[in-house]
This record gives sequence, C-alpha cells and structure tokens, in this order.
Amino acid sequence: MNEKNNSQNMIIGPNLDDKNLVSSVTGKDHHGQINKLDVIEERPLSIYLNSQEIVTAMTIGDHPKYLALGFLKNQKLIKENEKISGIDYDEETRVVVVRTEKESNYEQKIKKKIRTSGCAVGTVFGDMMESIEEIVLPESKIKISWLYDLAKEINQMNSLYLEVGAIHGTVLCCKNKPLVYMEDVGRHNAVDKVAGWLFSTKTNPNDKILYTTGRLTSEMVVKCANMGIPVLVSRSGFTAWGVELAKLTNMTLIGRLRGNRFICLSGDTRLDYDTEINTKN
Amino acid sequence: MNEKNNSQNMIIGPNLDDKNLVSSVTGKDHHGQINKLDVIEERPLSIYLNSQEIVTAMTIGDHPKYLALGFLKNQKLIKENEKISGIDYDEETRVVVVRTEKESNYEQKIKKKIRTSGCAVGTVFGDMMESIEEIVLPESKIKISWLYDLAKEINQMNSLYLEVGAIHGTVLCCKNKPLVYMEDVGRHNAVDKVAGWLFSTKTNPNDKILYTTGRLTSEMVVKCANMGIPVLVSRSGFTAWGVELAKLTNMTLIGRLRGNRFICLSGDTRLDYDTEINTKN
Repeated sequence: MNEKNNSQNMIIGPNLDDKNLVSSVTGKDHHGQINKLDVIEERPLSIYLNSQEIVTAMTIGDHPKYLALGFLKNQKLIKENEKISGIDYDEETRVVVVRTEKESNYEQKIKKKIRTSGCAVGTVFGDMMESIEEIVLPESKIKISWLYDLAKEINQMNSLYLEVGAIHGTVLCCKNKPLVYMEDVGRHNAVDKVAGWLFSTKTNPNDKILYTTGRLTSEMVVKCANMGIPVLVSRSGFTAWGVELAKLTNMTLIGRLRGNRFICLSGDTRLDYDTEINTKN
Repeated sequence: MNEKNNSQNMIIGPNLDDKNLVSSVTGKDHHGQINKLDVIEERPLSIYLNSQEIVTAMTIGDHPKYLALGFLKNQKLIKENEKISGIDYDEETRVVVVRTEKESNYEQKIKKKIRTSGCAVGTVFGDMMESIEEIVLPESKIKISWLYDLAKEINQMNSLYLEVGAIHGTVLCCKNKPLVYMEDVGRHNAVDKVAGWLFSTKTNPNDKILYTTGRLTSEMVVKCANMGIPVLVSRSGFTAWGVELAKLTNMTLIGRLRGNRFICLSGDTRLDYDTEINTKN
C-alpha cells in the first residue's frame, strides 16, 4: 500500500514512490520562460509467451509481470484453466516471459491474433468476438451511492495523473472502496495490469466494479467481460459498439460519471437508486 | 468542404453530414430517467497490402482509403518512393486493399512489424527506431500568434467531438489556418487519415503544423516525423520519450496549448514570439 494514499483498504495504490516512472524535462512557455517539469516515462516492454515473442507494449514500466499476464489472459492467448509455471522479468532487457506448463498451439494462433492498430484498439479483433459471445456476466447489485463515493475518492486520490498527467488509470473496486489502482500511458495497459493482479490472486471478479478514466470502447468492454467483472464505469464517454457488447454480455456499463451524475447504457437492472441526488454536485 | 464549418480555407472538415458515423442509444441517468443520446460508431476495417492482411483497425469508418494508405506509409510498410497502383475499398466487407506496382519483401517483414499493444502504442516498435534516427526535420518559422489562432478556431469548430464526444481529432494546418481535420475513436487513426491525404495529394509537409487533441507519446512523434512535418502541437500532455524523439528529429513539440498558454518541449528555435500575451485567456 502506498503511504501517500489515504484510502485504508487499498491493496495497491498509484506508484508515487517509484522515481523511475517520472523524469524531468525542460520547456519554454508562452512567455518565453524556461520551465522544468515532471513528465511520465514511456518505455518498451517485450512480452513473451514461452519462447514466442507476442508484443512490445509501451508502458510506464511498473508491474511488468501483472501487465504481461493480464495482457495474455485478456487476449485469450492463455486459456482459463491453463497452468502458469512461472513469470520472469529481466529489467535490463525489459523482457517478461510468461511460461505455461504445456506449450500450446496458441503460438500458431498468434499471427492471426496480434493484428491491431491504434488507440482504442490495441487488442485483437480476430477471435475476440468468438469468445465474447459465450460470456454472460452474473447478476449483482450496485448502489448508486457507491458510484458517487468511488468517483469522489478516486478523483481526489494522489496519483501519477494528478502529479504529471498524460496517463490513464484503472481501479478495481468492491462496493464503494477502491482496491487496486493501476496507471499507465496506455489505458489498455492499466486494465491489463489490474487483470494480471486479479488472475494472480484468484480474486472473485463477480462482486467487483471496474472503474477507468478512459473511454468505453469495444475493447475495454471485451477486456472487462473477459475478466468476469459485471460492472464497468468511466468518467469518459463511450462508443456505439462498446454499448452493444455490454448488452451482449449482460454488463452494466456506466459512462460520464462526474460528481453525482452518470448515464447507464446497459444493465440498469443492477442499479439500486439508494440515495437522494444532489445534482448541484 | 463541409458546409457546417465556417473556416473558408478548409479542404476537409469534420464529417458532420455522414449519418453513418453516429448512432442513437438509450440510457438511464442518475435520476432514473431514460435519455436518448447520439454516440460515435466504431467498426472494424481490415487493411491489406497487396495479398497480405496487415491489420484490423477499429475506426469510425470514414476515409478508409486515406486511413489504409496513411497507416501503411507511417508504419514504413510502404517505402517512400514506392508506386501505389491502386486502392480498393469494399464497403460491405469493410476491407481496403492498397496495391503497389511491385510486391515487395515487406510482407515478410510484417510478422516483426505488427506486434503492438494498447493505446499509446498501436504502432510497431520493431523497425520504428531504425527509421526515425535518419530523420532530420527542416527548419521553419512558427509565429506563436498562429498557435493561438489555431487553438481558438479548432476548439470552436463544429466537430464530431463537440457533437457526440469520445473521439480524437488531428488537424493539418498551414500558418494559422486548419486545412484538413480528421476525427476517429483512435487518435492514431485520425493521424493516419491525415497522413493518407498528405501522401495522396503529394502536399509539401515542411511548412505545415500538425495539431492533435491526443497526448504526445513516442508514437505520435514518430508518425509526425515520418510525415515530414516539423511541428507537432497538442492541447494535451506528453511523455518523456515523446520529448526525446522530438529532440532527436529536430521537431518542435508543443504541449498543453490552451488559450494563450503552451509549453514547448523541443525545437523552440522555430518559435517567433510575435504577439503580446494575454494570460487571462
């Protein structure tokens, strides 16, 4: 737990003490004055599944093992019941290798799977739709007061976002409490790091809420569904296909959560309107 | 030219008349009231180079030919002087095929090149660094009054961003005038569409300014350098490596342009402080 964070139930908080994540640059401002500023780092991390190189992710660099495991699981390159025999990270070469007990035929599938482009993509279209059609997320209840508590606490929490900006956050929550808060230059990496933690610790996803600062695109919905989390919440907007996939998987999808306002695009039967709404907020 | 846009010198403006880019969804808000809202579309587009499938991009769907050409050129999958013999787009299957006169050995390089993950990535780390080390962008002059004019005009212009949100924009500019304004769910797609237009029309990039709503990550800097544009400007933040690559290529990199404020992280010798600064703005 990061001591600078005031939430007492946090398991992992923003990595404010890791000085490797931030560096200092000099710029000239609108007055022509020299300014020194802290900026977020961005560095390549090569992810291997056994002997096969899968991807080079651009990441701030923390939690490389969670990122690798979460990425491979969310991409369905590692099956649900497949045994992980080890994860090794070499800091110098920035290579992380995830090892499974049996080498599978996934390596052959990879050529199809790793085709992707651009932001809001990052994942793979290939087999993505096949797997998501099988997912039906379980029922759960969400009090809307929890959403307001989460929005307030997460927005006010010390984070790399508040310190240096240009970064996205993803927070795994239970009821009105943030549990694991990951940040990264790529919002997909932040989600994958949370996924890596979730899978590693065998935490039950069914009573959780996933909060992200990024937009609710198809890919974010697919990742959340693959993680088994029935509720996905964002302060940002959403795409038409994101909404469609949320409906398909019985996910509660909530966008534009700001203060005590939000819009629920899918799965509103989970919502419990338990609180008076102060729309001045 | 889009008639809803008031800029008289625009060549391509936001696609506000294309009703395929937006659809209507229903949501329940914080009061429990049903709301109908317009949201941005997001759909797959498969990009082929000759007979080789390269990538499936998630895109709003406009300008597929520019997107495909810009992506392949920016990824260095098509060489600078290589002749394009045709670009075909099939609307039904959402496939775009870019054909070169000679089939090259690029198809073999692709396995290495298409590995990527997540937002702020989308491109390929592989050969990216090799090519960028050869780029030295030419000198040019930028009046800071142009930046303020551009920020104001672009922010106020009718766009899908203002209409439905959850979208990024990239604008090719000359002096204080926006010329080509592309939008997409992925900020990389928006840049690639501008690149496709630039390459197709053989427009001189050396006196241009590229404006983006997205963050200035390494990938955005590499794309801009590959396009030959010496000035990259954003309303958002930047990463340490983005700044480093801008310095390496002699690029002027300007972040956090809001009103009459900005910070120039690289290449400030191009700046002409020609105007009084009203920091109230």
